[in-house]
Amino acid sequence: MRIELINTGTELLLGSTVNTHLSWLGQQLLALGLRIGRQIAIPDGDVIREALAETVGRADAVIVTGGLGPTSDDITREIAADWLGIPLECDEAVTAHIAAYMAERGRPLNEPSRRQAMVPRGAEVLANPQGTAPGLYLPPLPVPGRGQSSPHLFLLPGPPRELMPMVRDHLLPRLAAMAPSAPAMRNFHLSGLGETQVAEALEAELTALGIPEIGYCARPGEVVLRVFGSPAQLAAAETMVAAAFPQHFFSSSDETMEETVVGLLAKLGQCVALAESCTGGFVAHRITSVPGASRVLGRGYVTYANEAKSELLGVPPETIAVHGAVSAETAAAMATGCLTASRADHALSLTGIAGPDGGTAEKPVGTVFIGLASRGAAEPLVQRFQYRVDRATFKQMASQAALDLLRRRLIRMI
Amino acid sequence: MRIELINTGTELLLGSTVNTHLSWLGQQLLALGLRIGRQIAIPDGDVIREALAETVGRADAVIVTGGLGPTSDDITREIAADWLGIPLECDEAVTAHIAAYMAERGRPLNEPSRRQAMVPRGAEVLANPQGTAPGLYLPPLPVPGRGQSSPHLFLLPGPPRELMPMVRDHLLPRLAAMAPSAPAMRNFHLSGLGETQVAEALEAELTALGIPEIGYCARPGEVVLRVFGSPAQLAAAETMVAAAFPQHFFSSSDETMEETVVGLLAKLGQCVALAESCTGGFVAHRITSVPGASRVLGRGYVTYANEAKSELLGVPPETIAVHGAVSAETAAAMATGCLTASRADHALSLTGIAGPDGGTAEKPVGTVFIGLASRGAAEPLVQRFQYRVDRATFKQMASQAALDLLRRRLIRMI
Repeated sequence: MRIELINTGTELLLGSTVNTHLSWLGQQLLALGLRIGRQIAIPDGDVIREALAETVGRADAVIVTGGLGPTSDDITREIAADWLGIPLECDEAVTAHIAAYMAERGRPLNEPSRRQAMVPRGAEVLANPQGTAPGLYLPPLPVPGRGQSSPHLFLLPGPPRELMPMVRDHLLPRLAAMAPSAPAMRNFHLSGLGETQVAEALEAELTALGIPEIGYCARPGEVVLRVFGSPAQLAAAETMVAAAFPQHFFSSSDETMEETVVGLLAKLGQCVALAESCTGGFVAHRITSVPGASRVLGRGYVTYANEAKSELLGVPPETIAVHGAVSAETAAAMATGCLTASRADHALSLTGIAGPDGGTAEKPVGTVFIGLASRGAAEPLVQRFQYRVDRATFKQMASQAALDLLRRRLIRMI
Repeated sequence: MRIELINTGTELLLGSTVNTHLSWLGQQLLALGLRIGRQIAIPDGDVIREALAETVGRADAVIVTGGLGPTSDDITREIAADWLGIPLECDEAVTAHIAAYMAERGRPLNEPSRRQAMVPRGAEVLANPQGTAPGLYLPPLPVPGRGQSSPHLFLLPGPPRELMPMVRDHLLPRLAAMAPSAPAMRNFHLSGLGETQVAEALEAELTALGIPEIGYCARPGEVVLRVFGSPAQLAAAETMVAAAFPQHFFSSSDETMEETVVGLLAKLGQCVALAESCTGGFVAHRITSVPGASRVLGRGYVTYANEAKSELLGVPPETIAVHGAVSAETAAAMATGCLTASRADHALSLTGIAGPDGGTAEKPVGTVFIGLASRGAAEPLVQRFQYRVDRATFKQMASQAALDLLRRRLIRMI
């Protein structure tokens, strides 16, 4: 089944909004074994007519986002109906929903709001509990003057919080019913490896299972191995991945690294404290992005200055003077001091050079030392990494390595 | 001038990579007064031929990203040359660049690498100091079998770190020369206001200046007012914006809030310390994302647990017991304690309920108290905000409000 996506919105082309619809929808469809064959972004306005016309004979289904709202530039519904030569009719149930939605917020039911209750004859209404404008599904209809039928047409709202539930509740079930034989997909998330290492270890074995398609996606500090197949093939693939990389494989349910770590700590009833220099609070931010993080994180220290490392974590000034702030010795002292001060079960420390300046020949920009101290463990574990990347990616990769170090310790305790 | 963008890359359609090229390029072109009229994302492979053919007669210039690399799915260069009926020729200078690039990294100059030195006859090479594959510019040429000319064609590499310098050094100057009369654009960044407040205060006045186009973009805690016009009109607009919103207007050079704050602190030779609860290190992360942040930030405390607030910041346990951890009193005590402990010039504190759980009727999810203490000021300033948004947006908005509170104090000291 050939699926195309049309994103309307002048702000997408002006660059004031990043189009996240494509990647999010791509992932949702891929989980059903479906793909978007082409995506187009166009400004608000009449150009949607031309974009719809192009898909005739090429696409089986077309998803349109945006242009269903109440303002004057929202004309997707009107243009689609006009293009197919069908009239718009006021839907009583939608009007009632909009009236109730507005009343709840103390806003009047004005004319622009009412316009959202107009439904092309023959269209199915897709309920929008998160907003006023419903989605619309138009089954294939003859296109005037073309002698061909339109694709299955899904008109969906642009705001993500309205779009996402509608996709899950209405779009995906309908598409799945149209293409019931599509193979399923699973993503295996592996930390601390390169794509080629994963491919060399697993590709031949996975192919021998009869798996029809394998893909790879490299992210900072992470490789995602994408496997399509029957449920039995996916289960066999998971066993293979886990056997080949017992330390690196951390999720087959698209859990993030921070979600994985928070989940493990919660399961163990333990907590972690953080001592960050070069990542400047980014590890704390990642952990506290997970709802319920307060059960596993009591405190974090951002010790950018040397005196902060000494005062808050008890790093001896001589350690910094002799070995440098960016050194294995300082990372170890930060982790040990953080564990003691916080009375947590584990303490992670990071000290490095995020750049763009500040490197030396011995410790170039991108050097980072990561320490992990745990209650009852004799010595803190310290690892050195080197990332030749920009400042933002450095923070991503260093924080990923730190969380992964902790994760590996935790899985041995489960 | 009608410009279209074609993004090639299967990963974009599978959703494993978010397409940031459109928004970034959209912003770059907008600064020249140019716009992208349509953007298409297609998979790797031969489908680029169809996408190029569609632009003939519709677009004046087409920018293609991706498909110039060494692997088997990188065939943009080959398809473009074949489509225009022109041969590929090996370019000696490019070969030398690739050989030097590979040698520096201790990698052999193999056949796939050499392929990147093939240049369509008549194309201009756009140097790629960040990688191996050069960009290519193809001026309008007759399209075989069409009786029409191709658009100006720019083939650019997909990786952002290769793409971005090539756009700045080669694409933008060429496009600017082709459309010299385009009006310039300036973005005015305003904090702590809604779009409608900005529009009501300024739109009539700006329109009276003869400004041909005004746009708005709402971001968490920020409105961007977009104005097109002559240099004189833009200067007059800036004066108006600054007069209407002297407290809220913080940048006309697309500086972020954190860049603005770091710049002001550096100019004053002052530093800030942070005491974060609900934002969990996100304010520290934003400040330390700015190169040179170590001059203005010595330390931050992530005090998620109540005992951390008391131990690290000296918040009296009675204050928390009587008023709650999320209260004006606790925010004030956190800021004061942070200022004392850190010996910084300013201390920001945040305590609130990020959600999704934990709210009460009196203090619902989304409540946050922000405190600011400064050396020499008698009392810490505390403000209360309420954000009805998801956890990630809550962190964005609360951190923006905190940085803005500090910014407003700093601009009075300059």
